[in-house]
Amino acid sequence: MKTPLPLNAIHIDDLYWNRYTRLIPEKVIPYQWEVLNDRVPGVPPSNCLRNFRIAAGEEKGERGGMVFQDSDAAKWLEAVAYSLACSPDPVLEKNADGLIALIGRAQEKDGYLNTYFSLKCPEGKWKNLTEGHELYCAGHFIEAAAAYFETTGKTRLLEIMCRFADLICATFGTEPNKLHGYPGHPEIELALVRLYRVTGVRRYLDLAKYFIDTRGSSPNYFIEEMKRPDFKRIFAELSRYDPAYSQSHVPVREQDTAEGHAVRAMYLFCAMADLAQEYNDGELLERCRILWDNVVQKRMYITGSIGSSGILERFTVDYDLPNDSNYSETCASIGLAMFGLRMNMLTADASYFDTVERVLYNTVRSGISLEGDRYFYVNPLEVWPQTCIENSSRAHIKPVRQKWFDCACCPTNLARTLTGLGKYIYLIEDNELYINLFIRNNAEFKINGETVNISIDTDYPKTGHAKIKIKSGALPLTLNIRIPGFIGSGNNFIVCVNGKPAAGERINNYLKITGTWNNDEVTLNFPVEPRLVYSNPKVHLNCGKAAIARGPEIYCLEEIDNGKNLAALSLDTNSPLQEFYSDKIPGGIMVIKACGKRLIAPEQPDSFGENFIPHTENFTLTAVPYGVWGNRNNESEPGEMLVWIRI
Amino acid sequence: MKTPLPLNAIHIDDLYWNRYTRLIPEKVIPYQWEVLNDRVPGVPPSNCLRNFRIAAGEEKGERGGMVFQDSDAAKWLEAVAYSLACSPDPVLEKNADGLIALIGRAQEKDGYLNTYFSLKCPEGKWKNLTEGHELYCAGHFIEAAAAYFETTGKTRLLEIMCRFADLICATFGTEPNKLHGYPGHPEIELALVRLYRVTGVRRYLDLAKYFIDTRGSSPNYFIEEMKRPDFKRIFAELSRYDPAYSQSHVPVREQDTAEGHAVRAMYLFCAMADLAQEYNDGELLERCRILWDNVVQKRMYITGSIGSSGILERFTVDYDLPNDSNYSETCASIGLAMFGLRMNMLTADASYFDTVERVLYNTVRSGISLEGDRYFYVNPLEVWPQTCIENSSRAHIKPVRQKWFDCACCPTNLARTLTGLGKYIYLIEDNELYINLFIRNNAEFKINGETVNISIDTDYPKTGHAKIKIKSGALPLTLNIRIPGFIGSGNNFIVCVNGKPAAGERINNYLKITGTWNNDEVTLNFPVEPRLVYSNPKVHLNCGKAAIARGPEIYCLEEIDNGKNLAALSLDTNSPLQEFYSDKIPGGIMVIKACGKRLIAPEQPDSFGENFIPHTENFTLTAVPYGVWGNRNNESEPGEMLVWIRI
Repeated sequence: MKTPLPLNAIHIDDLYWNRYTRLIPEKVIPYQWEVLNDRVPGVPPSNCLRNFRIAAGEEKGERGGMVFQDSDAAKWLEAVAYSLACSPDPVLEKNADGLIALIGRAQEKDGYLNTYFSLKCPEGKWKNLTEGHELYCAGHFIEAAAAYFETTGKTRLLEIMCRFADLICATFGTEPNKLHGYPGHPEIELALVRLYRVTGVRRYLDLAKYFIDTRGSSPNYFIEEMKRPDFKRIFAELSRYDPAYSQSHVPVREQDTAEGHAVRAMYLFCAMADLAQEYNDGELLERCRILWDNVVQKRMYITGSIGSSGILERFTVDYDLPNDSNYSETCASIGLAMFGLRMNMLTADASYFDTVERVLYNTVRSGISLEGDRYFYVNPLEVWPQTCIENSSRAHIKPVRQKWFDCACCPTNLARTLTGLGKYIYLIEDNELYINLFIRNNAEFKINGETVNISIDTDYPKTGHAKIKIKSGALPLTLNIRIPGFIGSGNNFIVCVNGKPAAGERINNYLKITGTWNNDEVTLNFPVEPRLVYSNPKVHLNCGKAAIARGPEIYCLEEIDNGKNLAALSLDTNSPLQEFYSDKIPGGIMVIKACGKRLIAPEQPDSFGENFIPHTENFTLTAVPYGVWGNRNNESEPGEMLVWIRI
Repeated sequence: MKTPLPLNAIHIDDLYWNRYTRLIPEKVIPYQWEVLNDRVPGVPPSNCLRNFRIAAGEEKGERGGMVFQDSDAAKWLEAVAYSLACSPDPVLEKNADGLIALIGRAQEKDGYLNTYFSLKCPEGKWKNLTEGHELYCAGHFIEAAAAYFETTGKTRLLEIMCRFADLICATFGTEPNKLHGYPGHPEIELALVRLYRVTGVRRYLDLAKYFIDTRGSSPNYFIEEMKRPDFKRIFAELSRYDPAYSQSHVPVREQDTAEGHAVRAMYLFCAMADLAQEYNDGELLERCRILWDNVVQKRMYITGSIGSSGILERFTVDYDLPNDSNYSETCASIGLAMFGLRMNMLTADASYFDTVERVLYNTVRSGISLEGDRYFYVNPLEVWPQTCIENSSRAHIKPVRQKWFDCACCPTNLARTLTGLGKYIYLIEDNELYINLFIRNNAEFKINGETVNISIDTDYPKTGHAKIKIKSGALPLTLNIRIPGFIGSGNNFIVCVNGKPAAGERINNYLKITGTWNNDEVTLNFPVEPRLVYSNPKVHLNCGKAAIARGPEIYCLEEIDNGKNLAALSLDTNSPLQEFYSDKIPGGIMVIKACGKRLIAPEQPDSFGENFIPHTENFTLTAVPYGVWGNRNNESEPGEMLVWIRI
């Protein structure tokens, strides 16, 4: 089984990613700690840690926040775990240990852990799987526990969560005396697989399989649950419940399309992939392939985001990709990257990483400000700030990043993803090393007792040049170097070993080079150039439009560079795209200029007219990477943004 | 003061409108009667009349339907009143009289009339003006009462409603012992003006003025009301109440833009115009002009519909006119036509009728099927049926007309509008007769004791030819013939009197011809030809698009004529538009053909691609009038529709 390298084996020092990998430990994790402790002025109280203190009997008051508020602490702890692997920090570790101890004190005697139900609704435990998020929160804490154990070696959180997992194992299953339910929001399934991998305790894996195999059976558990007299509705908007919302409309092995709430779908599919691997379940793998293809081919935005409907944060239908009213939640993209990593692990096909890279370089970056203290929950592809108004169809679209959210899943999810970035660079299995992302780093690890040293030196995505130094002693090792999909199918992926063209084999979008390595140097050269990407006309809103891209990055137009009303601009596809380096955005970016035109508004104020003759003037469009859009604006001066440009 | 002719003075017999004017009495009103009586299979019970029977103590059971369900009966009665003026029907009149008697029996002793509060919440009367719709329902019943009296001479409903109006006058006002509130949904204001005009009772007019002048005063009545301990929330979605929703954010005389719920805004503006007329209030008139211009110039769709946001059925901001997620409620367009009629009456400017005509020929027709038994509540300008799914951002868009609605304001509103169509044709004041619409009819009425006979013979909008025969005896009479805005500013409005060019004067978009008329014949000739209308580029979603129009009708593309994926089509603006008559839609239409292209989808399924090269093939576009779209589809075979076409 392919596995990522341990995070503390990798040291990332990358021009493009340093900003984030350094910001997270230095600024984001401490900022989020302050938020979770209700200490950031201007941010409404999270109540997250206070809820644990109340549950532990150490503070009086009313439990606050969303039903799943606990999970913010879990994702924060997971981010801390990864951060400590790369950037040791005794103060941070002490805070994390203190929080873990508090969580232990908030845990009930039988292992139950959830401040909402413990404090607000003890009689309602396990009685609202539809909306209650008990298993969801448990899943995030289990992930945090596994991560904290992996990177610090400390077992306290793992012990706490094994106790809870044992209670869950005793509560759910096929046996007549158990509940035959499964979570309204998948997450625990992938977490239980992870807990099994850390502990070796088989019942955790079996429970994950039970949850996956039971999901969507008939009659629908949630529909039946909601009929019970002791069911207490939490979310009014779910009163007309469609089981597809939680991917429980049919058993997972019968699902052909990604339906419902996008984050739920991604976490579910991740667990399906994990179980396909653990049980060598070809049927489940095939189902994962079908669902992956459906998402990536027909329901994903060019920026790697998913979820076309603002209402219920959900998938809709194939090719329905509205640009200015979509949800495209940051967490859903993170889930897609997690799913892609698993599909790559299962299939050894590098093309899955085209999507992982698309997510990381575009929507994950879009999700967080360059200063690390503002976040997008929703990642639209067009923003008209004046239309993003409360109590309207575009109320969910925020034209500027926010300090925090009432439902704050995304900021901590970004933190755990960016601190865990190293997991996406390499995979290893026996004598095969897979290089999936071109991020400057050096790593040291052992295979069969032999130390392997590898470093990647690159300024990607500024260029497509990379120098890989590798030393594996006596060990024969196959390098599998991902050939990125965006370079097309030509012979433009040039690899040399010690200056001589490499005799590699191309398999599944990897170049495979086998050898024994002794401080050898592998150089990569591939084109990272501006290009146009055209929409399939089946995407009705993008007919007659193109997007600018460069390497893994999708570009956008911003008002600050192009003036107001970006929709009035069109692109001349016959003129070459020009690129140049600019430090107008901190960290530096490649800016792309394109020849085009601007429609001129008539003198009349009317929105349409009998006598309007549309005319245009020449205009040079300026495009910047989507991942850094909106970093030159603030609350009082939001700006327009546009990805798909008329041609 | 200009007034419409009494409906029973006008006999409409028009190729274009007969379908509707005959359907309404023959089919629609009886169908709606059955629905209101819960007798139509497949339509969930309305409960409307049953509620009155329960309130009258004549039936047992629970009051059902929306809080404003009573108003469906009111609008039905108003439609019946107009219908009886044109098409006497003893059975219908008997049913209406029976309903009126029932309403009388449901009225409380003090005059109060509202089945929701009488039956469900008697302690809550007048305590939830924000949401309760008591005054809204009262307004519709007052309108019905005035109409029924005007056309039948019967006074029973008028007596009932005067009793209720007197109670309202005793309940609301500036005096310390009265409530200082006003309705959450305007409607009673314009109804009270109408009641004053029918009865001459001044206090009704004064109360209308009170409601208008108090609206939006500080502190906001609704915000204060919602704080009271006895406030009972009816609509969960209004929990974060923004006073702009009900146009109560500032006093009406300080409002510059049309805000909030579009139907509420229209009914409010109508009352403002009425009061401007009654009180000769120039300030209020100026405010009406400002609000009209804001709506018509910047917030109205080319089809005459309004309300850009599906959530809260509201206006958003200038030039925000999404085509496929808008609300564009049929009732809001009807309100806009009512407002336009009033603005024309106040100003004698025919250009207001360009919008009235736009509403009637496009969105009002779109709102009802050619068979009269299916309705659109929401009138989008683009429909992608597969994306119109429950529990999503486009759930409010229905790709086919519906039999009825839980909130059924639109069907009865259509009925009263179409039966009252004659009110829009002529206005009269002293010796001035205004001809505002080109609808085939003959009319007979008296001015200063002198009988005037007028007939308009036309096949408009098939052509722009009309023959007006007029006889006014010894009376000198000025004909004011509206010059439609769509013909532009050239000398293409040709008018002859008895075959000789007329020496008329053009004032405010009217051609004025003064004379004494003795079976004279005035002929009109103006161009009704296919044309392109371009969007102002400020409407970002329509940049680079045009719409096809012909006379007062806006055209659209339908899937049934053009195949799937209408967005892939583009229009060649250099080729002439071709028109021909077709009876493919009952009643016959002018079809317009245009040269264009179709984008060809690639073989790959991906929604975007590195290697897609967009190519096109020639295609002849077929456009039909928007007002009749969707009449060749049914629930099981919905079709795409598109108004704005790429150029």
